[in-house]
Amino acid sequence: MLSLEKIIIAANTLKEVIRKTDLIYSQALSKNNEIYLKAENLQVTGSFKVRGAYVKVASLSDEQKAKGIIACSAGNHAQGVALAAQKSGIKSTIFIPSTAPISKIEATRKYGAQIELVDGVYDDAYNAACKFQKETGAEFIHPFDDEDVIAGQGTIALELLEQLPDIDAVIVPIGGGGLISGIAYTIKTLKPSCKVYGVQAEGAASMFHSFEVNKREELPKVSTFADGTAVKMPGVHTFELCQKYVDKIVTVSDDEIATAILTLMESQKLVAEGAGALSVAAALFKKLPIEDKKVVCVVSGGNIDVNILSRVINRGLLKSGRLSDLTIEMLDKPGQLKEVSQIIADLGANVIRVRHNQGGEGTDINDCYLKISMETKNLRHFCEIKQALSKAGYRLS
Amino acid sequence: MLSLEKIIIAANTLKEVIRKTDLIYSQALSKNNEIYLKAENLQVTGSFKVRGAYVKVASLSDEQKAKGIIACSAGNHAQGVALAAQKSGIKSTIFIPSTAPISKIEATRKYGAQIELVDGVYDDAYNAACKFQKETGAEFIHPFDDEDVIAGQGTIALELLEQLPDIDAVIVPIGGGGLISGIAYTIKTLKPSCKVYGVQAEGAASMFHSFEVNKREELPKVSTFADGTAVKMPGVHTFELCQKYVDKIVTVSDDEIATAILTLMESQKLVAEGAGALSVAAALFKKLPIEDKKVVCVVSGGNIDVNILSRVINRGLLKSGRLSDLTIEMLDKPGQLKEVSQIIADLGANVIRVRHNQGGEGTDINDCYLKISMETKNLRHFCEIKQALSKAGYRLS
Repeated sequence: MLSLEKIIIAANTLKEVIRKTDLIYSQALSKNNEIYLKAENLQVTGSFKVRGAYVKVASLSDEQKAKGIIACSAGNHAQGVALAAQKSGIKSTIFIPSTAPISKIEATRKYGAQIELVDGVYDDAYNAACKFQKETGAEFIHPFDDEDVIAGQGTIALELLEQLPDIDAVIVPIGGGGLISGIAYTIKTLKPSCKVYGVQAEGAASMFHSFEVNKREELPKVSTFADGTAVKMPGVHTFELCQKYVDKIVTVSDDEIATAILTLMESQKLVAEGAGALSVAAALFKKLPIEDKKVVCVVSGGNIDVNILSRVINRGLLKSGRLSDLTIEMLDKPGQLKEVSQIIADLGANVIRVRHNQGGEGTDINDCYLKISMETKNLRHFCEIKQALSKAGYRLS
Repeated sequence: MLSLEKIIIAANTLKEVIRKTDLIYSQALSKNNEIYLKAENLQVTGSFKVRGAYVKVASLSDEQKAKGIIACSAGNHAQGVALAAQKSGIKSTIFIPSTAPISKIEATRKYGAQIELVDGVYDDAYNAACKFQKETGAEFIHPFDDEDVIAGQGTIALELLEQLPDIDAVIVPIGGGGLISGIAYTIKTLKPSCKVYGVQAEGAASMFHSFEVNKREELPKVSTFADGTAVKMPGVHTFELCQKYVDKIVTVSDDEIATAILTLMESQKLVAEGAGALSVAAALFKKLPIEDKKVVCVVSGGNIDVNILSRVINRGLLKSGRLSDLTIEMLDKPGQLKEVSQIIADLGANVIRVRHNQGGEGTDINDCYLKISMETKNLRHFCEIKQALSKAGYRLS
């Protein structure tokens, strides 16, 4: 049984391994309220997962420890388990589908884990892990549906209550529900007036759905770029704890998550992964009743592939009208590039790239296209520029 | 005169405004030593500059405050001064060259400053600011060569000595020298055994050069993407303090800075600007004698334009062989794309983009090109793939 005592013991166990992550006030996110960020992306291994994994390992007997531990994951759980094993001086074997990003595999290897790459997808890796478990008797560490793991994640709430004693609400990302179960149990035990809100990605809203229909149900498929939360079905323990202690669960879209990631980078200088930014997306897009409240968004992790990050930045900039692309049809005669540049400069946009194509498809033989990428203030600013160019006789396409 | 008392009073003044930023142990950077990051990129306004600016404002008389303050900058100093004025309830006017990035202008405006955009470059903005100063009698806040400003930056060292009492060395970025002067003075007064090292970008190494020739000298021009440190000449006070208290100054290249920025994002989940990453670049590329030492790298700021960040990511990935581009010449007949894909997959790389061009210039009429972007482990891995493709008869160009 989960108990406050268990969570306090977990916190004590973790002292040797984890960082007490900073709670950062966010001026950029606060609007008629105070928003704080619990920066678990700055946790060792780049996510909160090491808390639960280490507490679980500490609960094992010497005999169990001698057999080592197993996990099946390509993400934060893998790194958490690997580091927990390394710090405890025991062996870990991590099963990873061979399609996982190289950066995540290498990060896990760095913490001293034995890596088993399995051809196929998650289920194939899981089956291989189960086979290995039977052969070796090593302990399988569940990513969320385990009371020791949940107790480990709950230690975040103890830190929050110390860092912000008059906290009114906490917003927590949900995948399988381990993180929010630990936090909700601890918060509601120590400060029942504090609201606990959960957030899921629209494309992987298994807990949201089960919570609504009051029954654990499996989603036929999940799809979101918040890959750390792509779980088809909530756990038995985590579902029960959410039903009992969580006030409300909402969902956010992938576009909202991308905007939250960009906001965290620009305004807070923090790198968050999709799952990690769920809480911020919910606050930013006003999905929850947090007016006039002191609110903590748990930024649960930062392990995002930098290739993806680069795409998120571009998508976010385009979507908010901060980066704007124009294709202008021009007669190929001198002076026009100068005129177009002048119009854009007069309206205060910065041209960052120009491509001048002669004889594009579908144009008259004399025509050419000018492709311009500009840094703009917002979507309205972009419209003003388009209007000014149209007024000056240019055809935009 | 700078004094320890002045710095302690500054720290007390700052309590109401700034964050005591976290000191973060970096496993990724530590090699035979312990490296910690002082995360001033997580400071309000995204850089340490607000410390000095606020201390300076606090030192003004009521009469001076009534006339307001002025700064000339498009960067961290502008935001620091704007916030310092806002928090003190006085007026600030910031002169910015009109060529500055929109994101930086908007960030400064957000802190309530009056923005004056001046056509031209920094010198034009500076001249306009001087004219305005004469007309209004407002106080000009120098970005570095001012003892109150230096005392404000020195408060970082008080925090460091508290956060890591057995610190052996601190590595500090240098632009005009305000930050390192304050830190060096404080450290050498309280713990003379601790080394203080400075870092400049190769393309803007004014303090490095003056330090070497033992005389303040002006560089003819500066050019670096660590734009926050692009200063042609050290200050009078800052040069004197560096001569007296700094142990060594080194330089790093723009490529080394870019790699440091990428490392901070991937391993530490922190966004740093070029200037902010100088200290980490020096540690990463072994420019300083820090073996077996407990070392703090001051990450001075995080205000990097996200468009630039996106380019830094790509450059860093390409340079380290983590992202690799191949152009393969193929006969345009079926089955080859499959074969190439198989070879790449067998060697464990992830294809992330394919472009298949028929009839590129300079090829036979029957030939076509395959352009492949792959995620690879490192440069050696990329070579293995190229060798395997050559061996299978493909011509790479």
